[in-house]
Amino acid sequence: MDEFSLIDRFWKPLGDAVTRSEVIEGIGNDGAVLRCPPGQDQVMTMDTLVEGVHFPRDMPPHALGWRALAVNLSDLAAMGAQPLCFTLSVTLPEASASWLAAFADGMKALAVRENIQLVGGDTTRGPLSITVQAQGLLPAGSAVRRGNAQPGDRICVSGSLGEAGEALNWLDESDIPDPAVGTVLQRYRYPEPRLALGQWLREAGSAAVDVSDGLLADLGHLLVDRGAQLDWQALPVSDGLVSLRGLEGARRLAASAGDDYELLFVWPGDGPAPSGPTGSALPLTVIGTVTEGPGVTLNGPEGSIQLEEQGYTHFGGHHD
Amino acid sequence: MDEFSLIDRFWKPLGDAVTRSEVIEGIGNDGAVLRCPPGQDQVMTMDTLVEGVHFPRDMPPHALGWRALAVNLSDLAAMGAQPLCFTLSVTLPEASASWLAAFADGMKALAVRENIQLVGGDTTRGPLSITVQAQGLLPAGSAVRRGNAQPGDRICVSGSLGEAGEALNWLDESDIPDPAVGTVLQRYRYPEPRLALGQWLREAGSAAVDVSDGLLADLGHLLVDRGAQLDWQALPVSDGLVSLRGLEGARRLAASAGDDYELLFVWPGDGPAPSGPTGSALPLTVIGTVTEGPGVTLNGPEGSIQLEEQGYTHFGGHHD
Repeated sequence: MDEFSLIDRFWKPLGDAVTRSEVIEGIGNDGAVLRCPPGQDQVMTMDTLVEGVHFPRDMPPHALGWRALAVNLSDLAAMGAQPLCFTLSVTLPEASASWLAAFADGMKALAVRENIQLVGGDTTRGPLSITVQAQGLLPAGSAVRRGNAQPGDRICVSGSLGEAGEALNWLDESDIPDPAVGTVLQRYRYPEPRLALGQWLREAGSAAVDVSDGLLADLGHLLVDRGAQLDWQALPVSDGLVSLRGLEGARRLAASAGDDYELLFVWPGDGPAPSGPTGSALPLTVIGTVTEGPGVTLNGPEGSIQLEEQGYTHFGGHHD
Repeated sequence: MDEFSLIDRFWKPLGDAVTRSEVIEGIGNDGAVLRCPPGQDQVMTMDTLVEGVHFPRDMPPHALGWRALAVNLSDLAAMGAQPLCFTLSVTLPEASASWLAAFADGMKALAVRENIQLVGGDTTRGPLSITVQAQGLLPAGSAVRRGNAQPGDRICVSGSLGEAGEALNWLDESDIPDPAVGTVLQRYRYPEPRLALGQWLREAGSAAVDVSDGLLADLGHLLVDRGAQLDWQALPVSDGLVSLRGLEGARRLAASAGDDYELLFVWPGDGPAPSGPTGSALPLTVIGTVTEGPGVTLNGPEGSIQLEEQGYTHFGGHHD
């Protein structure tokens, strides 16, 4: 298969699986053409997943296709944007039709569900790596930014934390009877971008980030120059994770592990706690309060500790 | 240096080197925010350069920074778009400050000249690879597409061809006294996207592609279902390339080698040959005529040959 056969066989059908009226020209030219609707701003984000760094060498291609798109949709969610279109660059050591078909299927499942159209990209030979650049829309001026947190605002997080981090301990196991392990692996392989929540947060004048590097690291990005008081016992952890790691171990993962792609956000003022979009079953948990800052204090049953910024960064240690 | 120090030290200054009013939020959030001007369409393109595949292992980082952006601007040129903004994903085996500074400088030189703003991206660890997603603007409905060539239209190409292909023969040489070699190496390392020409072609209702895979391969993409009569002796080759390869060798490179990033386009009707934008010194050469097709005939001094589609494709042989 040459590059153009690959495009015809795998990428064009993926591009045709979603048709957006804003896309005037999709795959098939030197570039795609987009007509942005009046009154809308466009949000752009880009993430690369490298084999052996962001995912293990035997990652199932179906999950990889889903995940490469999901981590970008999570960034759109954190900005409050609705998905629109994306470009995809796939670098492969060899062109395996079965691998590519599974990869495209996994990506298509999420693309169709979230109504985001593949409009172009590149397919090249080299060490396995996937780059997605995703674009979304929101009403002009309504993007959810980082910063602008005020002292007294509550700090909230969606869903539960730490499961994707725990999954890293199980990726090499081949025969795992415990269903809790299946759940954490699913969480790592098929992250769920919190798009409805992000769009709902636009109304509240919130600041938000997605938890990709770990709660404490991403909290630093959210607060900018402010500080925080965090309640250790409020960190939301799933029963499954507690069954695998114990309560304290689960909370340690919740505080520091990345890849969960929940939204961490600031809820302004002292009214009722946030409820989330109508009909959503996604729990939202208040885990602390914004302070004048800087500096984060973690309040646990045995007292308080001052934290340095923590989490995982490239070229500073651990994986993304 | 962790990922965030890299952003602050190299990417944020590069993002600040160009400020576009259309960019509401640049680097520093989960995504950038763009406000597309009314009456404009947006063109999007993406290209990946992988070490050892698209460039040699010792490629000077300054040239690599230029080239990674230039190959994407060339796609914008082929669509007739004016550069607007881009996202950049850099995958690096290690974070070398001197390498990154030179890379960012090379990219900045072209970004500033063409007024294109870096708005985001990703920096990860792994085998050296660069992905750029570039975005441009054009008046709504005016994008230059492939196809729509009519029998009798002339086929034209800008500049001269084959030099970047010849450069591949000299990349490993360390001491080269011949200035013609210096010229072909420059051509490979610092390609010139033909942006002014592409924008000028919007007026003429032309079809266009950039010559990245080789003239004959890209001609197939340009013509879609049409055919062509090509004049072998008209293929534009530089004196320097002829001095290195002889006239026939130069023309063979011009017909099949890629990476020159000239524009190949169709000039409608039988009026005067195209002159190009006012004040441009870039030569435009008529090299043939569109036929009912399909099939390309190459007319040389020793007769005519029918060609299969040729050129370089990934997973089909050779490099890019």
